[in-house]
Amino acid sequence: MTTKAYGVQSADQPFEAMDITRRAPGPHDVRIEIAYCGICHSDLHTARSEWGGTRYPCVPGHEIVGTVSAVGGDVHKFKVGETVGVGCLVDSCQHCSACDEGLEQFCENGFVGTYNGPTHDAPGHTLGGYAQQIVVDEKFVLKIRHPQEQLAAVAPLLCAGITTYSPLRHWKVGPGSKVGVVGIGGLGHMGVKLAHAMGAHVVAFTTSDSKRADAKALGADEVVVSRNADEMKAHANSFDFILDTVAASHDLDAYTSLLKRNGTLVLVGVPEHPHPSPDVSNLIFKRRAIAGSLIGGIAETQEMLDFCAEHGIVSDIEMINAQQIDEAYERMQRSDVKYRFVIDNATMA
Amino acid sequence: MTTKAYGVQSADQPFEAMDITRRAPGPHDVRIEIAYCGICHSDLHTARSEWGGTRYPCVPGHEIVGTVSAVGGDVHKFKVGETVGVGCLVDSCQHCSACDEGLEQFCENGFVGTYNGPTHDAPGHTLGGYAQQIVVDEKFVLKIRHPQEQLAAVAPLLCAGITTYSPLRHWKVGPGSKVGVVGIGGLGHMGVKLAHAMGAHVVAFTTSDSKRADAKALGADEVVVSRNADEMKAHANSFDFILDTVAASHDLDAYTSLLKRNGTLVLVGVPEHPHPSPDVSNLIFKRRAIAGSLIGGIAETQEMLDFCAEHGIVSDIEMINAQQIDEAYERMQRSDVKYRFVIDNATMA
Repeated sequence: MTTKAYGVQSADQPFEAMDITRRAPGPHDVRIEIAYCGICHSDLHTARSEWGGTRYPCVPGHEIVGTVSAVGGDVHKFKVGETVGVGCLVDSCQHCSACDEGLEQFCENGFVGTYNGPTHDAPGHTLGGYAQQIVVDEKFVLKIRHPQEQLAAVAPLLCAGITTYSPLRHWKVGPGSKVGVVGIGGLGHMGVKLAHAMGAHVVAFTTSDSKRADAKALGADEVVVSRNADEMKAHANSFDFILDTVAASHDLDAYTSLLKRNGTLVLVGVPEHPHPSPDVSNLIFKRRAIAGSLIGGIAETQEMLDFCAEHGIVSDIEMINAQQIDEAYERMQRSDVKYRFVIDNATMA
Repeated sequence: MTTKAYGVQSADQPFEAMDITRRAPGPHDVRIEIAYCGICHSDLHTARSEWGGTRYPCVPGHEIVGTVSAVGGDVHKFKVGETVGVGCLVDSCQHCSACDEGLEQFCENGFVGTYNGPTHDAPGHTLGGYAQQIVVDEKFVLKIRHPQEQLAAVAPLLCAGITTYSPLRHWKVGPGSKVGVVGIGGLGHMGVKLAHAMGAHVVAFTTSDSKRADAKALGADEVVVSRNADEMKAHANSFDFILDTVAASHDLDAYTSLLKRNGTLVLVGVPEHPHPSPDVSNLIFKRRAIAGSLIGGIAETQEMLDFCAEHGIVSDIEMINAQQIDEAYERMQRSDVKYRFVIDNATMA
């Protein structure tokens, strides 16, 4: 089965329209007509092989929403016509302790990413959501309960949403928590919305004074410009939890020192160059921790989507045509987007 | 009241006998005839002002055991003749949230250290356990239930013991846990004994092959020489918890990579030069954490002493006379001690 897609033939080529093949749905498969696909920074890193190991042609995209157009004979969870989503994972071993616990993102045998992952399907690696169709095992397909008119803005929940939701839940953020969110971009703007909806007191940290009003509009109770030492100091020892969404190398001590006793700073981005080594005494003298978190499992992704539907949460997006992907990448690199680009996959026709 | 002590007059002077004064016991005070005092690395750092801020004369010592010789009129917990101990703290504000929770080591108004802390008593800073007597508020005095003949070896529990016990308890080490202890010195040898007594499977990490047999004798189920890459690799992704007692700058990634999903590496020592910046992806891809821990509160110190008495746990010590303190410091710097020096305070007479 052939479908239209947008991808790159090598690290230094622009995006181009291409025809790719998808497998015929097996007994447990769901075929999805993709309506929209969000653009994640990982797409750019992979398309340009900035992390190494990219297999070409490369079709990125793991913030996928659309409509079921066919189901395999043993599929009971989904019906043709249903609105569904696919996130960062399309397979995992299903028999390790992580998979047993529904934490497929930590699969001990390696999960299969939605793009650039190992597969028996042609061309030997998975191809993502910058395409008109995708075929995915029903275990990795999510139900979307948002109103149809919000569908495009739901797409980024499948990566940016779950990446911020999972640590907020794991570290038990809720009413009474004081939560910081560092970096108000694709991930951070979701972190602010979600922590706010969970009932926390939310403080947004940004390097740019110009984002103050925006961060408040997203749900932040307070906004701190991190370059302002006095503003930072006023929050010393006060946070239960800080979610740091900034992948660029930066000073972590500025944030560990804002945590209460037993507080945790969670990192969700891997910097290209290491952060300055964090001050150990900042950890010891308040029993603080620095931890990492990775997207989320399938069950938790469904929980997040349902939570967002219930609370009316979607991403703030800018819709583009498939022909604008390269331009969107350039703008994303300059943080010139509020806060996520989403491709209208109908424009691939 | 005058008592004999050993202290230093400045950062570069050797230890000398000196007479110091102790306050007359107030209504809540306990006067203790000190039998033994352990030597902690912090004593050396403070005596030599390596952390700065040392006030002279300096009398170190916060691993104190002895006998109650007087009690104030309102003291109900202790009687003359009882065997007691004093650790790293002799006072705290008693009204912050940390003190309210019995976590005086995290007192938000600053705990008073057993030496070099602020006090109204002469000479304006606290003087520690390298002395024949000390007067301490009963709230900071611990009961010792070990047999009398073990008393000298109990002294190091008051710092080395609680510093390792507290994180093992806080991170819920017990039967079924696989626990690593990095560095087999004053702290580490207690960590091995305690984790073993808590029912964990204990792996000791040492840089020196010569410590293999010793570590097993202390209670380690396995010993890994950390310079042996193959030995390290065999333990990848397998630890629930690793207690890192090494204060010298070293590669933390070697240990974070040995943690299971959700595992924690806890640091209890502040390095003079920063550790190499830890690899963030090691944290993210298994939701691991790096945390710090500081000694323990008074209630937990009592719990630790009772646990040790019940399980027959003491420190492995080498007893010295007060006149050998300088020599002991030199040997401690070369890690030439198994595993803790303890001063026989009777030799101060």
